[in-house]
Amino acid sequence: MSTTTPDPITPEDRERRDRFDRGRAVLDAVDGAAGEAVITALQDVAPELAHQIIGWAYGDIYARPGLVPRDRQLLTLGMLTALGGCEKELTVHLNAALNVGLTPQEIVEALLHSAVYCGIPRALNATMVAKDVFAERGLLPVT
Amino acid sequence: MSTTTPDPITPEDRERRDRFDRGRAVLDAVDGAAGEAVITALQDVAPELAHQIIGWAYGDIYARPGLVPRDRQLLTLGMLTALGGCEKELTVHLNAALNVGLTPQEIVEALLHSAVYCGIPRALNATMVAKDVFAERGLLPVT
Amino acid sequence: MSTTTPDPITPEDRERRDRFDRGRAVLDAVDGAAGEAVITALQDVAPELAHQIIGWAYGDIYARPGLVPRDRQLLTLGMLTALGGCEKELTVHLNAALNVGLTPQEIVEALLHSAVYCGIPRALNATMVAKDVFAERGLLPVT
Amino acid sequence: MSTTTPDPITPEDRERRDRFDRGRAVLDAVDGAAGEAVITALQDVAPELAHQIIGWAYGDIYARPGLVPRDRQLLTLGMLTALGGCEKELTVHLNAALNVGLTPQEIVEALLHSAVYCGIPRALNATMVAKDVFAERGLLPVT
Amino acid sequence: MSTTTPDPITPEDRERRDRFDRGRAVLDAVDGAAGEAVITALQDVAPELAHQIIGWAYGDIYARPGLVPRDRQLLTLGMLTALGGCEKELTVHLNAALNVGLTPQEIVEALLHSAVYCGIPRALNATMVAKDVFAERGLLPVT
Amino acid sequence: MSTTTPDPITPEDRERRDRFDRGRAVLDAVDGAAGEAVITALQDVAPELAHQIIGWAYGDIYARPGLVPRDRQLLTLGMLTALGGCEKELTVHLNAALNVGLTPQEIVEALLHSAVYCGIPRALNATMVAKDVFAERGLLPVT
Repeated sequence: MSTTTPDPITPEDRERRDRFDRGRAVLDAVDGAAGEAVITALQDVAPELAHQIIGWAYGDIYARPGLVPRDRQLLTLGMLTALGGCEKELTVHLNAALNVGLTPQEIVEALLHSAVYCGIPRALNATMVAKDVFAERGLLPVT
Repeated sequence: MSTTTPDPITPEDRERRDRFDRGRAVLDAVDGAAGEAVITALQDVAPELAHQIIGWAYGDIYARPGLVPRDRQLLTLGMLTALGGCEKELTVHLNAALNVGLTPQEIVEALLHSAVYCGIPRALNATMVAKDVFAERGLLPVT
Repeated sequence: MSTTTPDPITPEDRERRDRFDRGRAVLDAVDGAAGEAVITALQDVAPELAHQIIGWAYGDIYARPGLVPRDRQLLTLGMLTALGGCEKELTVHLNAALNVGLTPQEIVEALLHSAVYCGIPRALNATMVAKDVFAERGLLPVT
Repeated sequence: MSTTTPDPITPEDRERRDRFDRGRAVLDAVDGAAGEAVITALQDVAPELAHQIIGWAYGDIYARPGLVPRDRQLLTLGMLTALGGCEKELTVHLNAALNVGLTPQEIVEALLHSAVYCGIPRALNATMVAKDVFAERGLLPVT
Repeated sequence: MSTTTPDPITPEDRERRDRFDRGRAVLDAVDGAAGEAVITALQDVAPELAHQIIGWAYGDIYARPGLVPRDRQLLTLGMLTALGGCEKELTVHLNAALNVGLTPQEIVEALLHSAVYCGIPRALNATMVAKDVFAERGLLPVT
Repeated sequence: MSTTTPDPITPEDRERRDRFDRGRAVLDAVDGAAGEAVITALQDVAPELAHQIIGWAYGDIYARPGLVPRDRQLLTLGMLTALGGCEKELTVHLNAALNVGLTPQEIVEALLHSAVYCGIPRALNATMVAKDVFAERGLLPVT
């Protein structure tokens, strides 16, 4: 590209990139390697979904100051437990929850609390995913 | 049973009553009149369900010290939003959330966050219930 | 129709009518007026859905001998409670459950049991629909 | 930025407004008054959710050329039917479906098809909402 | 039945067989080997469910002319994504969608669209199943 | 216990242990080894959830006389099928259903019935789990 050609990046492109960069910073801080693996896996099938996860979910929503990261992960654990069938996303967000300061004891308590609203099977499924995540991080037994 | 026989209340009955009393104290502190109305409505159709809501959900689970009341309500809002079709329960727990210190701004932010995981319709439905609860408590507009 | 014109009803038409008749007999025996109202309401918008409800759901599935009507309604109450957002269908099938011999006490117990698997909100919503159905049939209080 | 040019609109603000304007154009073309009413109702409780519905859902996703509007509404009807408890959103998107060229016959057929995957209750609930929408637009009976 | 008329097939049996044959033709045209594998797997446990999938879902519903096969698969992808926990059925219907003319680009766009209504986790789960199906058919990368 | 050492077991502890013992007896009678494995797996991550499953779900709810064990398992199969994503819990409760007297034929019929209310995918998923359970117990083919 010659020095005389004007910048080909439109304002819209720039904003798109800025949101992405902002979202990526949040994603890196919160989800680390587990979130990154999801984004990488999407590149050859649905790169726009990857972009929206980073640019919208993390860049637009997570980046807002209205709730601290710990609150957002607590909420997210509750929703993923209630939805069911989200074991992979639970793995990412159980790691995220630990990364932002929730203790294994608090996570287990949150999943016990979820039994009241979602029933025992959903609470049990989420707890077994938590067991795997805790095991991988050397956090068992939870006492 | 003769007049000389001591208290006919078995240990099991007493424990059942104790759990109920413990749960009722939590329920009163957290949900106030909205929760009470649910319990009353159940008396002529399913008194045992009313007992289990108070004695188990509140007496056994809510009463545990592992998560502060604000955390429990945040979680609960996320789960009820994800489940869908729980507008009445959301009314109770949006009131509870305000009672234990969540601000309208935080609640609205939590429901915005829920759009990422549950989609726009669930987030929108819960937000419209929140609008009604806030209106009734003179908390609109949320700024 | 003159004797020279061959019967215009194809074998397929006849079978379609036979399944419908078989289903209608089951529907009438089980759901009575409440089921009939649903079928009527569909006539000007989706008559084929009405046909499939009667001809398939009732004519093909309900009519099978493998489970007695009481078992089918017990199952159905459990599924409608778990699905959520099916208050109208619950009204139909709570009536059906009573029609095929489930007592109000058994229904209330089944909905209490559902709290274990579906959580308190789904159990509570279904129980409040049951209260309305029981009230309309003069079955309150359930003791 | 010089002291004499007081332009207070940052590039980020401008992009935010551009996405909103793009989304609003799509929303107006597709959902008309029903969508607009939702956005208005959110203003005093969750204006950011309104912004995200327009700027993200319509501005970022709906505005993409990869699927024609008719395909998007067909998909949306299927998802809202499957989710359950989304009667208000179905009202908006049944209107949208008609606006982008789906006929009442196709909509009814789509909801009949949904019975295979979501079961009769979800299909029935969605069909009764369609009946209301069709009635309001003078489209009954569907033949 | 006299010994001279050996036809043991009742009209009902014949219709049952006809619906099955009609459904099987649709199934073969749409789902190919993946659908066939499901039917085969059911033979020793629930042959009647296999019969109903073919005779009812395909023979009665899919065979209707009101929606073209491409529309039916688009709808089906939306519903299976919304339901969650239907990875095996998604595999069958992603193959079916490709068989009836939906392109990988349209499928990926449909799943991106689903994020608006079902949330990111459901959209992501479905997209990862699509990645597997596309990989098996040599359709990666989607560009 | 001597008069100088005060009883270290509070009435609450005793009741907690009694409910647990009552629940364990029900669990053992109904779910056998499959249920036991779940409880064991929870010990190092969420022992309180294990306690609540036994003490509350089995000790408080299952132990009630209002529905016979066969009815409770029939209901449970319906709810787990409707919820989706509960394959592990279905394995436990399909075994339990057989243990309390439901025949493979009745179970298969119940899952066929579930197609009417939950749709084909949920019915199919549950039936494939049943196939595995029946195979392990030498109960195939179901005729």
